[in-house]
Amino acid sequence: MTSATIVTAAMLAIGDELLSGRTKDKNIGHLADMLTLLGIDLREVRIVADDEAAIVEAVNALRGRYDHVFTSGGIGPTHDDITADAIAKAFGVECIHEPKAMELLGAMYERRGMEFTESRKRMARMPAGAEHIVNPVSTAPGFRIGNVYVMAGVPQVFQAMLDTLLPTLQAGTPILSRTVRSPFGEGDIGVPLTDVQKKHPETSIGSYPKFDGKSFSTDIVIRARDPSHLDAAEADVAAMIDVISRTRGV
Amino acid sequence: MTSATIVTAAMLAIGDELLSGRTKDKNIGHLADMLTLLGIDLREVRIVADDEAAIVEAVNALRGRYDHVFTSGGIGPTHDDITADAIAKAFGVECIHEPKAMELLGAMYERRGMEFTESRKRMARMPAGAEHIVNPVSTAPGFRIGNVYVMAGVPQVFQAMLDTLLPTLQAGTPILSRTVRSPFGEGDIGVPLTDVQKKHPETSIGSYPKFDGKSFSTDIVIRARDPSHLDAAEADVAAMIDVISRTRGV
Repeated sequence: MTSATIVTAAMLAIGDELLSGRTKDKNIGHLADMLTLLGIDLREVRIVADDEAAIVEAVNALRGRYDHVFTSGGIGPTHDDITADAIAKAFGVECIHEPKAMELLGAMYERRGMEFTESRKRMARMPAGAEHIVNPVSTAPGFRIGNVYVMAGVPQVFQAMLDTLLPTLQAGTPILSRTVRSPFGEGDIGVPLTDVQKKHPETSIGSYPKFDGKSFSTDIVIRARDPSHLDAAEADVAAMIDVISRTRGV
Repeated sequence: MTSATIVTAAMLAIGDELLSGRTKDKNIGHLADMLTLLGIDLREVRIVADDEAAIVEAVNALRGRYDHVFTSGGIGPTHDDITADAIAKAFGVECIHEPKAMELLGAMYERRGMEFTESRKRMARMPAGAEHIVNPVSTAPGFRIGNVYVMAGVPQVFQAMLDTLLPTLQAGTPILSRTVRSPFGEGDIGVPLTDVQKKHPETSIGSYPKFDGKSFSTDIVIRARDPSHLDAAEADVAAMIDVISRTRGV
């Protein structure tokens, strides 16, 4: 493999409740899993409050730096849902009651015999020029503007929006990974593992300690886009563990 | 209450495994809970990879802006644990094998009959001038330099370090909160709730939808440092719900 396709992403989770501890975020880990499957590198995550200046600053910092920016939260019907306005401000465009969203929501409330209140109309607000991200759970759409994808904070809705969105994105060359289980703790393998990492700079080798109540072991995770790089590094990690075992007479 | 003490904080969670989805972060929510109890405002969270440039940039951005910065991850014994070096670089100081930490770790491994390897000595590395944050779980200390508190990523260790650290920080005036349960969904209460928020700018009113499978209700959470502000806003929220109930003949 000579030319890997690198696609980068960031996430911005928005909401006072995430910073007060009232709500424990579940969207970051889910997005991370999904992007890894797609070969898109999640490089950075930020969490900010429902604060216009904070949202504008974070969105502008991230969208200039990464291929895609995914946001969660703040697109509901109440006064503290200010994400659409903040994103419009970040892009320097007007925030409008988008006609197609108004139609979708109006029809849905009519079917349910509910009033399409001013509050509910807030859910049709998006920056001028934005495209819908379909919401199969509760109708109110998310939206895309430029490389920023704005989605709901409720995990079921976030996940459903992501399911409709992700197939439309260009996938990257997936990062492959192998896990080698080491019966030794990090303190025993650290030095030789550093040498393996140095010998295989095109791979990323991580080590994750485990403790079973009696002794430490380690999961060594090797990651690379090219399977041949992965094979070579994996062989050297296995050889390293073999050497340590023999040294210790295990 | 005339002068509330406002203390602000940010968190920086460090680790490739958080961005790949391999590990789901548990420290952000815990820190958020603990800081809320202490009256310290968590204003921003970032997650970055085990990447020196990314850590340096984030630490320097956050430490200049908030009273306290808490980090998690990257202080173990292997080559991918680069947090101590990155923090030293961010502060422009040397990263050393800190003598007291060397002593603590050396004694611990001696007691356990284990070799104090070069890898294990990495856990004694910290920026010159840093102070220890005690680790009652696995000895290897975290550290403080300036307003940055560097802690382990393993949740049990992160929490234990935080337990020893937090009592040493100046508490803020706690933010008090009241939750008023509304039998109506956000679409019904959004407009009048906006009016209540406008009337009580010294409070922060959030609304959190709930769906029981049949219908929506809302938890309205009012937050303020001054109990009298809280009382006034709570009374107006209760009155608002009463008006909606009577309007609808509930």
